[in-house]
Parts: sequence; structure tokens; C-alpha cells
Amino acid sequence: MTEKAERFSIQRVTEQGKTDTEDMVTKELPLTIILNNRELVTLLCSPQSLDYLAVGFLFSEGIINGKDEIKKMIVDDRRGVVRVETGEDKELAGELVFKRVITSGCGGAASFYRAADAQNLAEVQSRTEISAREVFALVKEFQHHSETFRTTGGVHSAALCDSREILLFAEDIGRHNAIDKIFGECILRDIPTDDRIIVTSGRIPSEILLKVAKSRIPIIISISAPTDLGVRLAADMGITLVGFVRGKRMNVYTNGWRVVAG
Amino acid sequence: MTEKAERFSIQRVTEQGKTDTEDMVTKELPLTIILNNRELVTLLCSPQSLDYLAVGFLFSEGIINGKDEIKKMIVDDRRGVVRVETGEDKELAGELVFKRVITSGCGGAASFYRAADAQNLAEVQSRTEISAREVFALVKEFQHHSETFRTTGGVHSAALCDSREILLFAEDIGRHNAIDKIFGECILRDIPTDDRIIVTSGRIPSEILLKVAKSRIPIIISISAPTDLGVRLAADMGITLVGFVRGKRMNVYTNGWRVVAG
Repeated sequence: MTEKAERFSIQRVTEQGKTDTEDMVTKELPLTIILNNRELVTLLCSPQSLDYLAVGFLFSEGIINGKDEIKKMIVDDRRGVVRVETGEDKELAGELVFKRVITSGCGGAASFYRAADAQNLAEVQSRTEISAREVFALVKEFQHHSETFRTTGGVHSAALCDSREILLFAEDIGRHNAIDKIFGECILRDIPTDDRIIVTSGRIPSEILLKVAKSRIPIIISISAPTDLGVRLAADMGITLVGFVRGKRMNVYTNGWRVVAG
Repeated sequence: MTEKAERFSIQRVTEQGKTDTEDMVTKELPLTIILNNRELVTLLCSPQSLDYLAVGFLFSEGIINGKDEIKKMIVDDRRGVVRVETGEDKELAGELVFKRVITSGCGGAASFYRAADAQNLAEVQSRTEISAREVFALVKEFQHHSETFRTTGGVHSAALCDSREILLFAEDIGRHNAIDKIFGECILRDIPTDDRIIVTSGRIPSEILLKVAKSRIPIIISISAPTDLGVRLAADMGITLVGFVRGKRMNVYTNGWRVVAG
């Protein structure tokens, strides 16, 4: 049984100052399902019950209809691989998964670990800083902004900001889509993203970190939690990751020098 | 500009009884991106800023690097299609999206609208009922169960239940994965799903409804919100959709006869 969460050294920041402490961060694993010796899909998931996840995914996608169709299954917890062999040939059904997949914008992360060099994601060099007071003010404005959330629930928001105010705002039922909408608007309207800040209502797994890194954003702020891979990627790529901004308190997971107390 | 939310007739249910009322439900659109006359992907999204979403997605996935690579873009809001033409041939990059996609379990819905007959999803016929009191008790137990959530935040939970208690419980950073883990366990351990109930911490878009329908589950309960497509699918497939269970109150969106007041 893999651990569910990992302990990270973080800084807890208020307007009064910074405190070094520790926080438990939920684990994220890229799980590759190999069907009849052919790579089918990589899911970002929590590293428990990988056999159940693989079988449930194959069932939900219409690739298998029951247990009797599974000839053999080998789970490699450590490497994040489940190999499934089925009696009859499922190649056609497997092909269909790729045609049918609705990503809700869930792209990127596990691929990154294989294709990091190809993507040429260099460390973000920006010297931008933000004060704790400014973070709290931005998040407050961000939460007021989310009009649909207040009427219906069920949507995520994202914003492009500088340290003073919200520059662009987007909403979507998918947190990935909300961030893609922000960067799509930046591209189409020639809005620069260097030295800017992304605020998101959603959690921060590795896939969100990669989107942000691709646009050279130095600071990402979430009112929710990151995953361990999100934290690791942020550390590697020189991005400041702020999570759990609640009232006048926040957790700074990586590159804390960009967040100034007070 | 498409409306963000749609008004639905619902029942608000407490232990004291049922009230007919209305609720605003956020909209969900399957958006197909066609790149150089070739279908690339279908995203489930909110129906605003489809141009920004398409361009942001192409950028995040590494298919385009900037505005100058877009020769032409046509947005069909009504049909949910964005056609993008790029200067150079992006076929190879497009192929890579399918290899690289990390679905986090986001499969199914838009495909359904094309492949409904193929999937043979007949209406769920179960006569199972549950009382309001039992719903509140189940959700209370469900929330106590979610141990990781309490330590780290950032995970979703799902449970298979009968009207009295939780039978199976799963957690994952992806709400789709949590539900796939439940159904995978049912398959591997020969646990029947007929007349059972799914409880989920996450929102209910169409893709979740489809997973539940595939296992012939008659009742799905969420502490969060559904989308309009989720509500429509539940209505069509004879599934009872309960949302926003908060304390001693809930919204019943479809097939309310299975929820008995008191």
C-alpha cells in the first residue's frame, strides 16, 4: 500500500510574517494502462487501488464488459503501470478510446516526464514579488468575481493578475479549461504573461503546473490544495506555488522568496 | 453569448416533505476542435469563450506556439465546433495529443451523443427507493469516511451504498477515477451494482452520469452540483439525480419518485 500523502516543508504566511512548518500533500501518480502489450492511456490518479482503477476505466470506456474478459493483469505499483491482457483482441475498442476521449482539458503531465526536453520548459526566471497583503486582496477580489459560482455552483474560475488587480477572468466546468481560456485570450489579444500571476479556484496537480510553466508564469495561487507532483514541478521550474489561501493565511510550497511578508 | 446557466424544475426535499421549485444549473457543452479538417478532440466545457478555449488548448498541448500560426478560425457556438487552420501542417503534433492525453478518467460523454446506440444504454428500471432521512445519514457517514480529505484536502471520494450504509469507498485526486475505482472493485470482486446508490463528493457532469448508467445504478447523490447535460442524461436514462445535499436539505433533479420524504 502506497502512502496517500507526503510531508513537505512549507512556509505559512500571514501579514505578520512567515513560519517554517510542514504540510501533508496528497500524492499523484501517472498510471499507464497497457492493454494487450499496447499503451492505451495514462491517467493522473491517487496511487491506491490501481487494479480497480484500471478495470473500472476499461469498463467505463466500453473496452471490457466483465471480469471473464480479463485473462491476466499485472500491477506495477512502483512504476505506475498496469498490464491487462484480454481474451479476445481489443485493439479496435482501444483505438476508439483515443477517438472518444473527452479530456476536459486534462492534458500534459505524464507526457512531460517522458518528453520534458522536447517541450524545452526552462526554469521561470522572473524576479516578480508579491506581498502577503496583496495575495489576500487578489484572492478576495477573485472570489467576488465568480458570478456563476454564486448562482449555480459547479464551475471553476481562473484569473490572470498582476500584484494589484485581476486582468483577465475565465470560468469553466473544468479547471483545466478555465486556465486554457485565460492563455487562449492572452494569445489572441496579444497580452503578455511574463511576470504575471495565475489565481485558480481549483486544485493544482501537475497538469495545471505545466500549463502555467508553458506561459512562463512565475506565481500560481490557489484557494485549494496542490498534489505532490504539482509541488515538485513548481520547485523544479522555479515557480512560486501558493495554496490554501483562506482568509488571512496561506501556505507557500515552493520558491517562497517571491512572497514578501506584510 | 450563450447563457451560462439554465433553469430546471426540481424538488427541494427535507425530512418534512417535498417542495416543487426551480434551480439554476450550469451549462455544459461538448466542444469539438477540428484542426486542419481533422477532428482533434472533444472537450466538455462551459459554452463561453470557445475561441479562447480552443487556442489555449492547442497552445497548452504544444500544437501551436502563437497567434501567427493560426491562419483561420471559425467558431460555431451552436453546434459546439471550432475549426482551426494552421499555416504549416500540424498533423504530427495532432497525433501526439492522442498519445499524450492524460484523461484523469474524463471519458465518455460527447462520444455518447454520437455512439449512444452502440453503447446500448437502456433506461435503468430499478424500483429502489430511499428516504430523505436515509440520504442525510448516508452523506453524513460518507463525509466522515473521507480520511485523506481531512488530512490534506485535494481528493475526491465516491462510495457504493445501499439505503442503509456504505458498501465500498474510494478516493482519488480525480472524481472520475474515484468512481472508476468503485466499479473496478465491483467487477473484480463480483459485487452486484443493481439497486445500489453512488455517493460522490464531486460535481456531476455528463461523463459521471454515463459511468453510473453503465453500471445500472438507479440513484446518484452528490454534495455538489450537476450540469445541465448531467441532468438531461439522468432524466433520459431513468436515474435519480440528487445534488447539493447540505445538512438536512437536498435538491432532487430527476426521477424524484425514488426519494421518499421523511
